[in-house]
Amino acid sequence: MAERLFGHVPGYPEGSLFENRSELNASRVHIPTQAGISGSQTEGAESIVLSGGYEDDADYNDMIIYTGHGGRDPRTGQQTHDQPFTRGNRALALSKQNGLPVRVIRGASHDSPYSPPSGYSYDGLYVVEDFWHEVGKSGFKIWRFRLEKIPENTTVGQEIIAEDPGDYSVPNRREVRVSRIIRDTVQARAVKALYDHRCQICGTRLECPAGPYSEAAHIRPLGAPHNGPDTKDNILCLCPNHHVLFDNGAISIAVDLSLICTEGDLTVHRDHHINQDHLAYHREHLLVTCED
Amino acid sequence: MAERLFGHVPGYPEGSLFENRSELNASRVHIPTQAGISGSQTEGAESIVLSGGYEDDADYNDMIIYTGHGGRDPRTGQQTHDQPFTRGNRALALSKQNGLPVRVIRGASHDSPYSPPSGYSYDGLYVVEDFWHEVGKSGFKIWRFRLEKIPENTTVGQEIIAEDPGDYSVPNRREVRVSRIIRDTVQARAVKALYDHRCQICGTRLECPAGPYSEAAHIRPLGAPHNGPDTKDNILCLCPNHHVLFDNGAISIAVDLSLICTEGDLTVHRDHHINQDHLAYHREHLLVTCED
Repeated sequence: MAERLFGHVPGYPEGSLFENRSELNASRVHIPTQAGISGSQTEGAESIVLSGGYEDDADYNDMIIYTGHGGRDPRTGQQTHDQPFTRGNRALALSKQNGLPVRVIRGASHDSPYSPPSGYSYDGLYVVEDFWHEVGKSGFKIWRFRLEKIPENTTVGQEIIAEDPGDYSVPNRREVRVSRIIRDTVQARAVKALYDHRCQICGTRLECPAGPYSEAAHIRPLGAPHNGPDTKDNILCLCPNHHVLFDNGAISIAVDLSLICTEGDLTVHRDHHINQDHLAYHREHLLVTCED
Repeated sequence: MAERLFGHVPGYPEGSLFENRSELNASRVHIPTQAGISGSQTEGAESIVLSGGYEDDADYNDMIIYTGHGGRDPRTGQQTHDQPFTRGNRALALSKQNGLPVRVIRGASHDSPYSPPSGYSYDGLYVVEDFWHEVGKSGFKIWRFRLEKIPENTTVGQEIIAEDPGDYSVPNRREVRVSRIIRDTVQARAVKALYDHRCQICGTRLECPAGPYSEAAHIRPLGAPHNGPDTKDNILCLCPNHHVLFDNGAISIAVDLSLICTEGDLTVHRDHHINQDHLAYHREHLLVTCED
């Protein structure tokens, strides 16, 4: 099987139109002819199709709330079970974790002003900003993914011509340039200062030549649909390692401030009030447990 | 003193023109009336002026190589000493470390096709992509900073209206949205797979629900002027914490693969050849030692 291609597919710029799924398949813009998510659990997801399959989807053009798959009755299409954290759902979570770009294709059957009148349109690259679980309209658990469009002039999938490929040369490859967005606000700086840049989970303080380094982690994420506030009671001071674990649902924090899925307790400064509602939100929606 | 303002200054969009340094000062686009770098060692640098002071500067419009300050004879302007890693130089390094946006102002005396015919122009926001030291044309050590323009439609300095400010409310603040750019290439994925996502420095493997997480660190940085190749012999598999330390010059690697400025040795897989020239480049240009 050919290598999975992240980023734009050469020859198919944003706005390319396709009559049907087999044309999409032939172009490699979206390979599966049935599944809405193309990807693997070990490499991530590289493309999705919005085709009106899920009542919980929401489309604001530059921002999409996409519902994962699974748990539906194959005959009726009704949601009859919880969606598992496997296959495409896990592949999209991995794309979030690794910051990989995802191609978005809209089908005419997708109920949105941004859908094409017929067939399918390739609508560019998005990043999965976050993923979480909730109870859908059906009453069953669904996985949801917030995708944000990558501005067109951002370097993604740019061809790199290796001038000195050395011993490990391979044919010219495409660069996928991805980011971890680290927000730095006045409130974030205040929390980091309160802990003198020591991680509230492990106590690590990264000593860099220009000064200590830490990151501000929002407990309830900023942005729709979570709408967590940028206030100190919603911010933790973490080292990058624990920030990655916290943001990807590997660990969380209990009511008594003990850590979930790792040893120990959160260190909390006496002047730092942490909002219990935000902690509950993280446990209920962001944490991914073994049962998922 | 007023709070340091990162990002655009309200009322002064990109392209704003100023007759002289006192107009720049009054606008707060660049506050100091003499210094080329505005910032502090503890908060970072928020603006620089290119005014032809350094023979080593290079200006490609969207990418600028900026030379730090210090070590010059105040009478002649000649470089007569090494530039120290203090004041504005360290402030710009901190802006790099924390991903803060820097306002760039060009003066008419700056020798570049992008300079205004007279006075000063505010030319938008840049990120400090990397910093390093080298021997300048003068024969003395200089600090250099590569700045890359942030595309205009990127969210930087956007006003956040806190809907639920809670107990820790403050007046509406500006968000500074910054990124750590983590490149993910085919070569990077191969190196991460070779180590099964274990950090070559500390052995940490971050276990996330969607899969293990690690980062690929380029030893000799990609991009001008370093032009490090995207090849396995120039890539390390690191945890985010050690990636931050390595990229910000806190640690490096000796010829015998022992670690510099931290305990231990680099773990190297028998199928992973690491290029000694790239290690030497990192030690000589990226590492910041106490003598700096």
